[in-house]
Amino acid sequence: MGTYPTTPRTRVRRVAKRAVYDREAIHAILDEALICHVGFVVDGEPRVLPTAIARIDDRVYLHGNNKSQMLHALENGAQACITVTHVDGLVVARSGMHSSMNYRSVVIFARGAKLEGERKRQVLETFVERLIPGRAHDLVVRPITDQELKITSVLEFPLEEVSAKVRSGGPVDDEADYDLDLWAGVLPLSLQVGQPEADARLKPSIPVPDYLSTYRRPTPLREDRD
Amino acid sequence: MGTYPTTPRTRVRRVAKRAVYDREAIHAILDEALICHVGFVVDGEPRVLPTAIARIDDRVYLHGNNKSQMLHALENGAQACITVTHVDGLVVARSGMHSSMNYRSVVIFARGAKLEGERKRQVLETFVERLIPGRAHDLVVRPITDQELKITSVLEFPLEEVSAKVRSGGPVDDEADYDLDLWAGVLPLSLQVGQPEADARLKPSIPVPDYLSTYRRPTPLREDRD
Repeated sequence: MGTYPTTPRTRVRRVAKRAVYDREAIHAILDEALICHVGFVVDGEPRVLPTAIARIDDRVYLHGNNKSQMLHALENGAQACITVTHVDGLVVARSGMHSSMNYRSVVIFARGAKLEGERKRQVLETFVERLIPGRAHDLVVRPITDQELKITSVLEFPLEEVSAKVRSGGPVDDEADYDLDLWAGVLPLSLQVGQPEADARLKPSIPVPDYLSTYRRPTPLREDRD
Repeated sequence: MGTYPTTPRTRVRRVAKRAVYDREAIHAILDEALICHVGFVVDGEPRVLPTAIARIDDRVYLHGNNKSQMLHALENGAQACITVTHVDGLVVARSGMHSSMNYRSVVIFARGAKLEGERKRQVLETFVERLIPGRAHDLVVRPITDQELKITSVLEFPLEEVSAKVRSGGPVDDEADYDLDLWAGVLPLSLQVGQPEADARLKPSIPVPDYLSTYRRPTPLREDRD
């Protein structure tokens, strides 16, 4: 799978040993994400908004209403910084100084390109499938309409300048602190998927589909499932 | 508790009915968060990095190693955009168009001020307590050293230009789509706290403290407990 190149923008500056440029590892972090935080500049000032993200091959996609300030700012090739973060645990050290979090994050620098026509439709369909694998098969009975396509913008960003940073494992304390009578370790944190809650207007005869009753992140891609 | 004023930067542009300016509601979203995503501008380009966040009254605090590019960029009063997001569920609608997520997000626009001296020490101690309520009491046996204080930067940001956006509830489908034989509803998502994992070098006689075995987000503030 290879690695992504290190550029001045993607070189991890603090605690460089936690840097990850491996392509497969970066894809796995992106694929587990439901949302990213998108940074863009308006009148010289930063803006950061959360939005859904989907990866296909070496590109990531954002979408939204075509009146969105964010999509407007980015669709003409403005620089974006797209960040995905998973918090995996609290690292409870014997000092405040070494207390930390376990996490996996990816930072992407890229300029967006607006999709049109058939490609735009394909990516929107894939979006649903990436967030809820199995769902696209159901939605074929109600395809995207031309009007929906018209009011939706889809932006494509290449994965070229991208890096990950990962912390895992227990606390690393100052040697003298191991003598303290303090509990130390990790409190694991993860995404919990609850029981599907039926819409108030759901027809009573329709059961919860398997892809929701067994939903989890990271979700297996369609091609990985039998 | 009142509301925060709406400014051109904090006015929610898309789906304005989801905007929240209520002070108490915004504080609750911030207090549930372990991390935020911080946007800042370097050479005219956006940067977005995840970092721990703590709120005290009408201010939020970030901290880190004093060599951090982010803290350097912000400690001299550069504009920051600090965003906190909780994803509460997947909204599974009868069309891709109306499929969505339930979420609570807060966006803060503010300029940072670097803390020094006793106030800096106080905020660092409070930081631990906000992330792991109860822990600060244990850590008094090993206070922050002067050297640790020296290599750590703490930045304070006022909550003045701040807004929240919240989506909750089930899907809102096109009227004609309610006839479709498709399951629809919400798949709830939340933070799962696992069993504490002891450090490999933990003294065997030290039990897991209550504040970790019963840990949850949002964590009750100290004054709310017993």
